[in-house]
Amino acid sequence: MSSAYPTAIPDPAEESAPTTRCRILAVAERSFREIGYQKTTVADIAKTLKMSPANVYRFFESKKAINEAVVERVTGEIEALIAGIADAPGRTAEARLREAVAALHRDTTGRWAGYPRIHEMIEAAMGESWEVCRQHVDRIGAVFERIVRDGVRTGEFEAADPAVAARCIQAAITRHTHPLLVSQTHPELEPSLVELVDFLLRSLRPAREPARG
Amino acid sequence: MSSAYPTAIPDPAEESAPTTRCRILAVAERSFREIGYQKTTVADIAKTLKMSPANVYRFFESKKAINEAVVERVTGEIEALIAGIADAPGRTAEARLREAVAALHRDTTGRWAGYPRIHEMIEAAMGESWEVCRQHVDRIGAVFERIVRDGVRTGEFEAADPAVAARCIQAAITRHTHPLLVSQTHPELEPSLVELVDFLLRSLRPAREPARG
Repeated sequence: MSSAYPTAIPDPAEESAPTTRCRILAVAERSFREIGYQKTTVADIAKTLKMSPANVYRFFESKKAINEAVVERVTGEIEALIAGIADAPGRTAEARLREAVAALHRDTTGRWAGYPRIHEMIEAAMGESWEVCRQHVDRIGAVFERIVRDGVRTGEFEAADPAVAARCIQAAITRHTHPLLVSQTHPELEPSLVELVDFLLRSLRPAREPARG
Repeated sequence: MSSAYPTAIPDPAEESAPTTRCRILAVAERSFREIGYQKTTVADIAKTLKMSPANVYRFFESKKAINEAVVERVTGEIEALIAGIADAPGRTAEARLREAVAALHRDTTGRWAGYPRIHEMIEAAMGESWEVCRQHVDRIGAVFERIVRDGVRTGEFEAADPAVAARCIQAAITRHTHPLLVSQTHPELEPSLVELVDFLLRSLRPAREPARG
């Protein structure tokens, strides 16, 4: 972010902009999580930060814009995490796929589970800022696809259409990775994520190799 | 229901009980769908039916109890539909599994999609009447398991643990069958249900049979 700073005579207002932006987002995220998206107002966020609402509006034109930036930040972190796993050298495609799925589940659960009002923020994002959500789903799908293609290339996997196979895996783990569903897990009713991934991986095994287990 | 009627001297109040119960449920379901669970009151339901709230309370002790009965009715219908497909004679396990999944998706979409407030009713049921929801998920899982076991018995499928395989399929189609998610489909992002089921069925194919497609 330092490249955004002016290099000659620093203008204090400009200089503090990235920090103020970040502070607004951090306060907003906490409030959306704890108080709920509906009940959080731009005035509340400003009050917590001891600034005027007008100053918040200098950075974000609306609560929607704040939420959009919160979601962009969160999804960017998750995407970087998953991409790091997918691109780790020296590991089988299966190991990377298993770890990417587990990390996605862990991250989503850690972020959203246990906050009863978090669905308001998620639903607002999915309704008002769908493009941001769409890009996130698409990027995670692209990472899965990269792993599946690697596996097909080395003969570890078999898939007529690696893109479709990757999107099927991504869709199939929705129960364990969708922010609206992760708060509710029912181990007595549902397979564990490991059982589910075992099942999905069987679908990618080359046909002539005897099935495991 | 006729067996519930007294056979000797009919008591008009008793006689009309099942009908009144059904009318209350029908009005409540429509109101939950159109106005939303939060904004619907027992007084509204009574008013629509031109009866006193006290009369509604003779049948249901609370709005929660009404919702529970609505969910029981709806889930009972879906379970009967899926069981009918699973137990149809003379069809392959694959054909029955495909049709059961498609019917579940169609039914859920038809019932819930397009009503923006329906998540209130679903969330209330999942929160306040979880046992009813749990039993539904369990019964649908049992029907899937019956189909998978049939397929394993005839050699059409291979699964080390048919119960786990069936629950994995059930979990994997969440994206297309969960009432909280069916309103949002994104064909540009996600595999179709047919692509997903093709992928899942590959996992059930006997290991030595070459994969299709």
